[in-house]
Amino acid sequence: MLIWLLHYRGGIEYDSDNPARVFNVHPFLMFCGFIFLVGQAMMAYKTVPAAKQAQKVVHMVLHLIGIALGIVGIAAVFRFHDMIGAEDMFSLHSWIGLTTFIMLGLQWLLGLVTYMFPKASLETRSRMMPWHISFGRALLYMAVAAALTGLMQRETLLNLRGHAEARLINFTGLCILLFGIFVDLSVAMAHHA
Amino acid sequence: MLIWLLHYRGGIEYDSDNPARVFNVHPFLMFCGFIFLVGQAMMAYKTVPAAKQAQKVVHMVLHLIGIALGIVGIAAVFRFHDMIGAEDMFSLHSWIGLTTFIMLGLQWLLGLVTYMFPKASLETRSRMMPWHISFGRALLYMAVAAALTGLMQRETLLNLRGHAEARLINFTGLCILLFGIFVDLSVAMAHHA
Repeated sequence: MLIWLLHYRGGIEYDSDNPARVFNVHPFLMFCGFIFLVGQAMMAYKTVPAAKQAQKVVHMVLHLIGIALGIVGIAAVFRFHDMIGAEDMFSLHSWIGLTTFIMLGLQWLLGLVTYMFPKASLETRSRMMPWHISFGRALLYMAVAAALTGLMQRETLLNLRGHAEARLINFTGLCILLFGIFVDLSVAMAHHA
Repeated sequence: MLIWLLHYRGGIEYDSDNPARVFNVHPFLMFCGFIFLVGQAMMAYKTVPAAKQAQKVVHMVLHLIGIALGIVGIAAVFRFHDMIGAEDMFSLHSWIGLTTFIMLGLQWLLGLVTYMFPKASLETRSRMMPWHISFGRALLYMAVAAALTGLMQRETLLNLRGHAEARLINFTGLCILLFGIFVDLSVAMAHHA
């Protein structure tokens, strides 16, 4: 992804006069910040041996950093639309992306009040757990779907048919998909280990 | 989706001289045939009360029909590329889609030899089960990701910015995503019920 943005697409800078460089903040932060950190947060809870309380705090904090970077990444794309005078929120990518982001924020808040502060009763906590896990997994795949539709949209708009850059984008997309599947599998398998 | 293809896009016909009508076979069969039937097959095994053997056969046969319709759907898009002289397999959508389809075929074959004919030993079967489940779930989300990148590509190519048709496509995409999540949740929750 860095090769794509730095070599082919002119670099990454939020506070730039060049709209393309502002746009590039968006894929960089959404993947490297958001999807990567959220995936690490999911695995931290299940696959890293540590005290339960430490796992929980790391799980919560990594999500929080991911969400914070996500906010900057989304702000970057609105700033880019502003600069080139494009309409916001018209595409399937934007609909999926923003829905995912808002729901992940709500999931994080609900997790915080249920499992950390103020903690719910043991019974409520264990009754909520399957929902917390299944929704978390659904949100991971939603985030991956958002990333892939975003790459697909960019590839089609740039009209890269037959270029090496198109293959690089496809490869990046497949890596993101594989990362999502690997996170899901490693968390699911930790359950059986 | 039918409103999109019939009202906005001129209908569905495999054996047509109009490339657009041939193309329309692809989204129709890939979703209504492939994703929908595969989702039903997953739920049939876990959420419909019936004898175990009947559940297994329905699970296997629904996948088989879904795969058969998928083959026709993929053939349609190659035929369309042929008609308009476009290059095959250049986009992220095509890479994800074909990978998913081939892996689902392999998963089906592996499931058949492990669980139906010739059946493996009880120990092997129960050792394989978590992998069969987790890979199946990953493949469901991969199929959804393939569908969404496909809709995204079509929407961008048709340049529908601001049209009602774009909102219809977005809505269709969100429904496919919700269907995938609903299948995953209902199978996961059946485990806890």
